[in-house]
Amino acid sequence: MNLSFPPSEDLLIRRTRIQHLLKEQNADACLVSSFVNIYYLTGHVFDGYVYISGKDDLVYFVRKPGIFVDEKSIPIRKPEDIPSLLKERQMDLPQSLALETDHLTYNECIRLQTLFNPEKTINATQIFRRSRMIKTPWEQEQIRYAAKQHSAVYKKILSLFKPGMTDLDFQYEIERVMRQHGSIGVFRAFGNNMDIFMGSVLTGDNAGVPSPCDFALGGAGPHPCLPIGANGSLIKPGKSVMFDMAGNFTAYMTDMSRVFSYGILPDKAYEAHQVSIDMHNWLIENGKPGLSCAEIYNHSLKMANEAGLSANFMGTTQQAKFVGHGVGIEVNEWPVLMGRSKDVLQTGMLIAYEPKFVLPETGAVGIENTYLVTENGLEKLTIFEEAIVPL
Amino acid sequence: MNLSFPPSEDLLIRRTRIQHLLKEQNADACLVSSFVNIYYLTGHVFDGYVYISGKDDLVYFVRKPGIFVDEKSIPIRKPEDIPSLLKERQMDLPQSLALETDHLTYNECIRLQTLFNPEKTINATQIFRRSRMIKTPWEQEQIRYAAKQHSAVYKKILSLFKPGMTDLDFQYEIERVMRQHGSIGVFRAFGNNMDIFMGSVLTGDNAGVPSPCDFALGGAGPHPCLPIGANGSLIKPGKSVMFDMAGNFTAYMTDMSRVFSYGILPDKAYEAHQVSIDMHNWLIENGKPGLSCAEIYNHSLKMANEAGLSANFMGTTQQAKFVGHGVGIEVNEWPVLMGRSKDVLQTGMLIAYEPKFVLPETGAVGIENTYLVTENGLEKLTIFEEAIVPL
Repeated sequence: MNLSFPPSEDLLIRRTRIQHLLKEQNADACLVSSFVNIYYLTGHVFDGYVYISGKDDLVYFVRKPGIFVDEKSIPIRKPEDIPSLLKERQMDLPQSLALETDHLTYNECIRLQTLFNPEKTINATQIFRRSRMIKTPWEQEQIRYAAKQHSAVYKKILSLFKPGMTDLDFQYEIERVMRQHGSIGVFRAFGNNMDIFMGSVLTGDNAGVPSPCDFALGGAGPHPCLPIGANGSLIKPGKSVMFDMAGNFTAYMTDMSRVFSYGILPDKAYEAHQVSIDMHNWLIENGKPGLSCAEIYNHSLKMANEAGLSANFMGTTQQAKFVGHGVGIEVNEWPVLMGRSKDVLQTGMLIAYEPKFVLPETGAVGIENTYLVTENGLEKLTIFEEAIVPL
Repeated sequence: MNLSFPPSEDLLIRRTRIQHLLKEQNADACLVSSFVNIYYLTGHVFDGYVYISGKDDLVYFVRKPGIFVDEKSIPIRKPEDIPSLLKERQMDLPQSLALETDHLTYNECIRLQTLFNPEKTINATQIFRRSRMIKTPWEQEQIRYAAKQHSAVYKKILSLFKPGMTDLDFQYEIERVMRQHGSIGVFRAFGNNMDIFMGSVLTGDNAGVPSPCDFALGGAGPHPCLPIGANGSLIKPGKSVMFDMAGNFTAYMTDMSRVFSYGILPDKAYEAHQVSIDMHNWLIENGKPGLSCAEIYNHSLKMANEAGLSANFMGTTQQAKFVGHGVGIEVNEWPVLMGRSKDVLQTGMLIAYEPKFVLPETGAVGIENTYLVTENGLEKLTIFEEAIVPL
C-alpha cells in the first residue's frame, strides 16, 4: 500500500488549475466540501471546507480534522462560522461563488447559499471534474503503481478457480487477493446510480441481464437491493467469465477487464473477442492528443457493425452508449468516450477503453485497458494476457 | 442469501405510512428517486421515479428498469416527461411536492422543481427516514436472518487469527467469511461523511485516532484517502482487537461489536468492558416503548462518569456524542441515541447500542448489540459471547 502524500509542487499544479478554471467561469471563490475534492486539493481528507479565492493560498475551515494537521487550518463548528472568519482575515465575500452543485445535497447547498448570499452560484463539481481529467505527474505515478497491482491480482485469477464455483464464490476469492494487494476496498464513483461492490464477474446469460446502474454491462446482482454483477450463477462448461474488478490500489484507480473460459467457447466468442482486440489496436495506432472522443466511439461502433456484431455490442437487451471513460479518484471521470462528446484526447488524460460484446448463452467477451495519453500517443498501463484464458 | 421479495401487504403498510406522513406535512405528492427509498417502496431497484399522491396507488416512471417488471411502470427518457404523463392520467400536478432534499443533489432537485414548479417543496428524505424507523413485519424477518448470519461470522473470528497478523490482514479474512455468509458487501450509510469499507477492526493506539467520519470510533484507516478503521497495525500482545463489521446479509443490516484480546489485557480494560455490559443490562431492564433516547444517552454518560471513565467514553481525543442509532437499509437510521434527541422508543424500532471505551495503549473495549423494540421490551438479536475473548 502506498501511503505517501503528494508533494507540494504537485498540489500547487492542481490549485493553480482550479484557480484558472474559476477565473474562466468568473467565479470569485469556491467552497469545496466533498471528501473526493478535498483529497484532490490537499492529499488528505477532513470534515470541513476548502476555500479557494483568486490567486491566494487555500484556507481550510475544519470541523473534524481526523489526522489532518496544517497551519492554514481554521477550526469551525459549522459553516455559518465561515463568513465572519473570512472578514477577520480581510478577505472579501465572493459575489459569484462556486459550489459543488452536482455533489452537495439540495439542503446543504441552500444552506451555503444562504450564508454567502452570492449573486451567482457556479458549478464547482464540473470545474473539478475538468481539472481532474488531466492527471498531474504525481497522480500518474500513483496510477502506474495501481496498474501494477491490478495486473498482479489478475495473474492470480487462474489459480483461484475450482470447478463447481459460482460467479460469486469466484469473486469472493479475488476480492481477498485484491485486498491483500492493497485495494482500499471502497470503490468511488460519481453519481447516484453507481452502487457496486469491488467490481463485476459475469458468466453465461447473466452477462446480458440489464441493470439500472450506469456501468458498461449489467448482471442481475447478488440481491434485489444490489442489481448489478454476479448473481450466484454456476460457472458451467462452454461459458465465458469476464472479470472487471476495481483497480483501487491507491486513491487513483485503473480499470481492466479480461475474459476466461470454462472449457471451449463457441467460435463466435473468439471472433468477437478478436474484434475487441482489433478495436484496441486501432485505438493504440490512432490515439494521440487531438483525437476526438466521439470519433473513438463512432469508429468502435463502425467496427462492430462491420463484424456483424452491432446487436451484441455493449450489451444486448440494454446497450451502453459509451465505449470508455476517464478514470482517476473516481471510476467514471471525464472524458466519456461517447458519440456526443465534445472532448478530444489531451496529454495527461487517463482513459479506460472497454469495447465488449455480450453473446447469449455464452456470456461477455472483449477486453478493457487503461491508457495514459502522452505526447507521443497512448501508454498501455494494464498489462495482462489479452486472449481468452482457459480455466 | 435471501432473495425473496416483500409481500404486497408489507409494501402496502409502507406506502400507507408514507401517505399518512405526506398528509401530515401537507404534501400533495412525493417524487422519489434514491435507490434506497425506491427499494423501500417496491422491493426492487430501478432507475427512475416513484410518484406517490394522496391515497392513489404508486406510479412508476422508469428510465432503466433493470429486471424490474410491473404493470404500473411507465417508461420515460427523462424526468421532463413526467408532468404531461400525469396529466394524461387525469392526475393533478402537486402544489406542494415532497422531494428527497437531503439526498438529491442541488442540480437534480432544481431540475425537478423547475418541472413541477410547486408552491412549496417539502423534505421527503425526512419523511422516509421517519417511516423507515419503524420496521414492518417482513423487515423484521429480514433483520432476524441478518443477525443470525452476523453471529455465525463472528463465531469464525477466533479460527481466523494467526500471530503476526496486522489488523488489515485479520479484516481481509473476516471480509471473505462475511461474503461467504451472504454479505452484499456494499455498506449503505446516510450522508456524505460515511465512507467505510465493510466495517472496522481496531487494535491498540489506532483505536484512539480521530477520524473525519461520523462513526462512533475512528482509526487512521488504510490510506490517506480513506481515514477510518484499520491502518495496518500489527496485533501485539496486551492489545485489544475490536470488531465492528457490517451485518448486511440482506438489504437490512444488523450492527454488532465484540472485543478479542491478544494475551492478557490490563485490569482496567476488563473493568471498562464490564461497564459497557452493565450499560446494556440497564438498557435491557429499562428499554421499552416510551423510554426516551436522550435518557438512554444521559444514563450511559452517567454510568461512564460513575466508573471514572468519562475521558475514555466513545473515544479520547475526539468523543462521539451518541451511544447508538437506528439501523435498517442504512447503518445510520433513526432514532439517534443522543442527548438532544426528541424521540422515544417505539415498537418496531431497531436500535444498535454501542457504549464503548478507548483505553490508550490497549485499544477499544465494550460491546454493541442490535435490539428490536417490542411491546414487551427489547429483543436482543445479535447473539455472541459478550466477554473479551482471548485470541
